[in-house]
Amino acid sequence: MKVLVYGAGQLAQMMYLAAAPLGVDVKAVDVSNREILHPVSKQKLELNLDYALADVDVVTAEFEHVPEELLSIAEESGKLSPNARSILTGADRVREKALLDSCGIPNAEYRIIRRFTELEDVIQSLGERVILKASRDGYDGYGQWRYQSPDDMEGIKTALASLDLDTVPIVAEKMVNFDREISLVGARTKDGKTACFDIAENLHHKGQLHVSIAPATHLSDALKAKAQEIFTAITNALDYVGVLAVELFQVGDSLLVNEIAPRVHNSGHWTQNGAETCQFEQHIRACLNFPLGAMHTNKVTAMINIIGCTSFSRDLISIPGCHLHWYGKEVREKRKMGHINVTAESYHELSNKLEQLMTYLPEPYFPKISGEIGRLRSI
Amino acid sequence: MKVLVYGAGQLAQMMYLAAAPLGVDVKAVDVSNREILHPVSKQKLELNLDYALADVDVVTAEFEHVPEELLSIAEESGKLSPNARSILTGADRVREKALLDSCGIPNAEYRIIRRFTELEDVIQSLGERVILKASRDGYDGYGQWRYQSPDDMEGIKTALASLDLDTVPIVAEKMVNFDREISLVGARTKDGKTACFDIAENLHHKGQLHVSIAPATHLSDALKAKAQEIFTAITNALDYVGVLAVELFQVGDSLLVNEIAPRVHNSGHWTQNGAETCQFEQHIRACLNFPLGAMHTNKVTAMINIIGCTSFSRDLISIPGCHLHWYGKEVREKRKMGHINVTAESYHELSNKLEQLMTYLPEPYFPKISGEIGRLRSI
Repeated sequence: MKVLVYGAGQLAQMMYLAAAPLGVDVKAVDVSNREILHPVSKQKLELNLDYALADVDVVTAEFEHVPEELLSIAEESGKLSPNARSILTGADRVREKALLDSCGIPNAEYRIIRRFTELEDVIQSLGERVILKASRDGYDGYGQWRYQSPDDMEGIKTALASLDLDTVPIVAEKMVNFDREISLVGARTKDGKTACFDIAENLHHKGQLHVSIAPATHLSDALKAKAQEIFTAITNALDYVGVLAVELFQVGDSLLVNEIAPRVHNSGHWTQNGAETCQFEQHIRACLNFPLGAMHTNKVTAMINIIGCTSFSRDLISIPGCHLHWYGKEVREKRKMGHINVTAESYHELSNKLEQLMTYLPEPYFPKISGEIGRLRSI
Repeated sequence: MKVLVYGAGQLAQMMYLAAAPLGVDVKAVDVSNREILHPVSKQKLELNLDYALADVDVVTAEFEHVPEELLSIAEESGKLSPNARSILTGADRVREKALLDSCGIPNAEYRIIRRFTELEDVIQSLGERVILKASRDGYDGYGQWRYQSPDDMEGIKTALASLDLDTVPIVAEKMVNFDREISLVGARTKDGKTACFDIAENLHHKGQLHVSIAPATHLSDALKAKAQEIFTAITNALDYVGVLAVELFQVGDSLLVNEIAPRVHNSGHWTQNGAETCQFEQHIRACLNFPLGAMHTNKVTAMINIIGCTSFSRDLISIPGCHLHWYGKEVREKRKMGHINVTAESYHELSNKLEQLMTYLPEPYFPKISGEIGRLRSI
């Protein structure tokens, strides 16, 4: 069987690698020019989009910022999984907030700014610390501005003055004083069955995910159940098919949804080495209406993003349970170049392995690990 | 980095899939026409062999029956791993026997037949049951003839009459009344370090491997140590670099080498889901002089070959721990189409999963499983 992926980055690449053993061929589309590419070599394939769309069984997306026209074409063919509404909801914070509200799912208090003149009032109404997010095309901290004191107002005004808020409104959120961010990655099948991986906890730095630990430490059964209810409510509301990630803020005993990603997600990369079936294979299975694979966790895993950095020794793969996943991209500042999954039998052992790992990695590019070494050791 | 594989079958395909996450590109060579192919799609790549040889860091082989000239070209470039002598030894039973004898490694009593007129004498001298094997180009039971009673002599004479025994002598072996066949897959690095996976036990049917169980049941530490000594002796003697498999007959407390395969091997496929690093990644690591990965066993695994059969329900992948590896080939009698790895926490659980699996598979194509279900249950 054949799958076409909108987007030709590392997520399409890892879908290809996970799908091939099932006898499923994956091709990628560069949505900027509609070229069909091999998802690993990125070699241009001599196919046009119309032919590729007709040829495959399923069309999916590795990211949500796909031109609407491409989504429509695929949806009309009856082959798009997840559906266009799901992808558009993930791509647009205004739609996303509306979905969460309609499902009664807690999320950060917010207001939508559609006119520049509303800016100051909205910020005042939301409290002392506010985060402003462009409703579309933001990722990894881009398209976000923080208001943490009146001194920030001028800078924010300057940044927003050039934007067309009619087309891309701003979602202003009250900044949540959360204990931590966790994420739930799960799958929903065509007949409405849902199944989730264990929840991961995520460490960010300057707006980017740096480390995920799975399963999340010290997570109560009540919170796990709550997160799964949220996952089920969202995916049912969207009539979702495939893998979806929900990022959640934990505040004491409650959960607020930060955002949803209608796709395989960086915080689910740990499943490649820590779970019985990885998220990439699971997504392919769900989209092709194959039975889902077992999702139980085999090991404790740390997923470490390699960001903007190639200056490390590949010999880190000598550490038992250390698995490199390299994307083959040219290095650029803030670019995700690859990730490392480190598996262990316990958090304590994981801590030791992370300590070993840091002897191979340049600390400035991996600022979140040393803190985790201490924290995991004491669990 | 880049690797070129002589041979473009499933072993090259699985090397490609295991190498990609390390940032290593693998291309395959159809040795019959020297075309360079994508190892998964089998699409012809617009490269000639000379260019490809110059472009890659390492040349390796997925099977031992590579034309000697191709091995020489690669060896002269200094890029061939394992070396030509190792590959030629695996390809030629006369060389293989000479190697085993020179290392003092026990193997089945044999004589070499280089003239048709020697046939009867040799058979008489070896006892009542003899197996005759063409010294080259035999695999999966092809090129083998069994002498089990005087009635077989005429048929064997007819079969052998047409052969050129000068070029391809026959190795006549006394048939071993073995308890079982086991195999050891391991790796040797450039600096002479060896490391082995757990030993698997293999079930054959009509000359083809059907099932491997890893780790082998009821295997004494003494036999494990003996097998590892044999592996070390063979790979040291060959100055071997890469993954190599040794097939062994267990006869009580002793081991006889049946044959060696200078490559990744069907009886090592279980490592894809049962061991920390799979044999394909390990071979790539060894050949590129990367550090080896951890080789410990994570689960009890059954590897089941799908031979000459496509008439089964893909829904077997709904069984937890059941992983399909499909090669994407056209079906043909006796052709290996793919394999299934089933992992479990115990032999007993594995037995239950195999029972489930058989509800999806047509028994006639999988004749060795029902016996295993009973045997594994009682362990």
